[in-house]
Amino acid sequence: MKKITPRILSGFMELLPEEQLIFDRMKQMIAEIYESFGFVALDTPVLELSEILLAKAGGETEKQIYRFTKGDTDMCMRFDLTVPLSRYVAQHQNELSFPFRRYQISKSYRGERPQRGRFREFYQADIDIVGSETLSVLYDAEIPSIIYKVLTKLGLKRFHIRMNNRKLLKGFYEHIGLNEQSAEILRIIDKMDKIGEDNVRMCLFDLGLKADSISQVLNFARIQGTIESVLKQLTDLNIDNACYQTGLEELKTVTGALNDMGVPETNFMIDLRITRGLDYYTGTVYETFADDFPSWGSICSGGRYDNLAGYYTDRKLPGVGMSIGLTRFFDVLKAQGLLNTGSKTPACVLVIPMTPAEAGTALRIGNVLRQEGIKTEVYSAQTKFKNKMVYANKVAVSYVVIIGETEKAENTAVLKNMKSGEQQTVAQDKLAPSIRLLQKLEPTLPIIKDC
Amino acid sequence: MKKITPRILSGFMELLPEEQLIFDRMKQMIAEIYESFGFVALDTPVLELSEILLAKAGGETEKQIYRFTKGDTDMCMRFDLTVPLSRYVAQHQNELSFPFRRYQISKSYRGERPQRGRFREFYQADIDIVGSETLSVLYDAEIPSIIYKVLTKLGLKRFHIRMNNRKLLKGFYEHIGLNEQSAEILRIIDKMDKIGEDNVRMCLFDLGLKADSISQVLNFARIQGTIESVLKQLTDLNIDNACYQTGLEELKTVTGALNDMGVPETNFMIDLRITRGLDYYTGTVYETFADDFPSWGSICSGGRYDNLAGYYTDRKLPGVGMSIGLTRFFDVLKAQGLLNTGSKTPACVLVIPMTPAEAGTALRIGNVLRQEGIKTEVYSAQTKFKNKMVYANKVAVSYVVIIGETEKAENTAVLKNMKSGEQQTVAQDKLAPSIRLLQKLEPTLPIIKDC
Repeated sequence: MKKITPRILSGFMELLPEEQLIFDRMKQMIAEIYESFGFVALDTPVLELSEILLAKAGGETEKQIYRFTKGDTDMCMRFDLTVPLSRYVAQHQNELSFPFRRYQISKSYRGERPQRGRFREFYQADIDIVGSETLSVLYDAEIPSIIYKVLTKLGLKRFHIRMNNRKLLKGFYEHIGLNEQSAEILRIIDKMDKIGEDNVRMCLFDLGLKADSISQVLNFARIQGTIESVLKQLTDLNIDNACYQTGLEELKTVTGALNDMGVPETNFMIDLRITRGLDYYTGTVYETFADDFPSWGSICSGGRYDNLAGYYTDRKLPGVGMSIGLTRFFDVLKAQGLLNTGSKTPACVLVIPMTPAEAGTALRIGNVLRQEGIKTEVYSAQTKFKNKMVYANKVAVSYVVIIGETEKAENTAVLKNMKSGEQQTVAQDKLAPSIRLLQKLEPTLPIIKDC
Repeated sequence: MKKITPRILSGFMELLPEEQLIFDRMKQMIAEIYESFGFVALDTPVLELSEILLAKAGGETEKQIYRFTKGDTDMCMRFDLTVPLSRYVAQHQNELSFPFRRYQISKSYRGERPQRGRFREFYQADIDIVGSETLSVLYDAEIPSIIYKVLTKLGLKRFHIRMNNRKLLKGFYEHIGLNEQSAEILRIIDKMDKIGEDNVRMCLFDLGLKADSISQVLNFARIQGTIESVLKQLTDLNIDNACYQTGLEELKTVTGALNDMGVPETNFMIDLRITRGLDYYTGTVYETFADDFPSWGSICSGGRYDNLAGYYTDRKLPGVGMSIGLTRFFDVLKAQGLLNTGSKTPACVLVIPMTPAEAGTALRIGNVLRQEGIKTEVYSAQTKFKNKMVYANKVAVSYVVIIGETEKAENTAVLKNMKSGEQQTVAQDKLAPSIRLLQKLEPTLPIIKDC
């Protein structure tokens, strides 16, 4: 029979067991943190009606969408998790309790041109808190406190959550008479890190700003220091503009609450150059950068928006949220060798019967160890003992339990630590505590190598 | 602005928080059991090249597939998890260790006509053990021992895993001279439970079988009793056919190993009427039925196959596996009111500040409780205290921690058990142990109500 070459579509990420295990650990860990804050997981369909998904989309995004018809139904694969959330909340608004807190860690689809770090199927790990009519600004602080928990738990130490407030910016531009250009200015300032201050100056000039307006804009963007110092500088500007003052109050509340939630100032700062280009955001905005790896770009970004689901409902649904581009982040960590990969099996123990005569004993031991909460594989393939150990080494299991004729007769087993090579003979009914003891001596490494 | 009515495609399942929480608990529990046996999770792409996915498909399945082109690429959404597995193993055969053990709990897609219990997007929870060239029959016993663990842990008590062996059947039909019609006979016998013995008799007659052949086939299918008794009856038939004897040996080995793995005979039996219609299976086959709910059909089915990936590689890859149709099973349990649903939030505790003056304290307490491993939501919305308690009731959180002026001043909190209504004043630094004590008194209910 002619064989078809097994392969996947380009631009899709598929992992081998060793990588898959650490990816799943990362996904699981993030889910647990989200749940520890009381977010409920949603699992919306991958396919939605085109009319629904494309209510807002346009331009580049729309071109990239996987859209097709089946029968007479025009449908799309989702391209993000925000549009499905807005559809869900609008659809089920009378069955949900507000503030509604949801997370979703799922794949979305965009037929982008394949390039390094761009995937056509990609996981995002989103959280949003959606209020009905109003939503306290204190929730704006909860989101970065979760970012802090996630990155710290992943093993990242040197990173900064950079915060800003769009009302503060809008008020400032109004105050210096640049109200009309403010959207354009925001987009330009947002590129500061990428294109540098000189280019920003030129762009602002091209926009028609006068020299002193440009200086004012840049001087404002340059304000920095500790949280206390930045807040003081912003206060001392004495800007008599309601929008500015609201933004400043919000910044004070959010940074104060971050302190209450135990986020150290070594991991967050006010950065007046962060604007988040999207029109969508209306208040607090955040981006997060690893100190030592600026090339990664922002790991998690998000912010406050005024209205989640205006296309589907008249009810005003303000919210705040953020997203981690998980597939992209994982790909970067993998490419830079920063993942603490290890075993190729989730099992902690491999039980090996020397010959078929010990197969039953091996199965019984496997069963007992699992009941004791120890993940255990039994090697039942009939082959030479040497091959069995080759398998154990290849899958990089931590411990091997060997049962030969003697061990079977004496109700014992040989317990071997595969890392150290040490082995000991243990009574079969003492295997579980012996393994737990060995496990305690080997601390679990964080997902990301020290950085 | 004209609003678009928010809705999803028909034939898709979407859950509200209360249902989603229990669905995810079920999914998570199954994943944990699979991992406890050393299966590694795979996460293959939802989209694959049509050439790959349709190598085998045909007939009904092919008509149901979501297939489309983008650019000049002809692609499909996967319609099961087996074809992607075979592609994966063939593609990565030199990087994998055999026996290769994988599980995948993911969605597949079929554009079936919508009807009760049929979904166009559905979860399957698959496990397979794939050998290179050979695979010990002992692995055939591991699969039903996992089915046993899963269903027991879900809370189902009265169920039977029904096993048979295709070699035994094939040998028997050879022996009575019905070799050529054996595939047809298998398909007919497989329907016994659905259509009844009389109709089976008629179908066999239509197939051209003579009266005594029909009697022989039916007498064989009727053999039942304890494992020991069935094996004895099968042995006593003294059938001199190699294929039959191999099948009988395999049944003996598998049932013996099931015993080693602690599966009680109250949950498994040999049923010679189980054949699994698919040509795919070549040895052990299983189906699983709830004793009290025959209308559910088989909850998990599977078996042994000779060659996983013949379309993609010359390497022989025999395997054994099974699949749980999770979306369908969940839908049945939900429809019959058999799910122990409870809370609408994953949080165990809701911290409520009486007024904005206690907001900071509430955030600090939330942070501490989370550090102690207690899932905690802080209610930061600014509204009347009464509304805060309405929210707590609506999301059905177990415990509420209330901080008022007095509690803040005295570093205490009111801890309220929402189920019993009892409340106590507790020092803030004693909240975590107090909550853990209350948790201990409330045992976790299984996912499925007693049945």
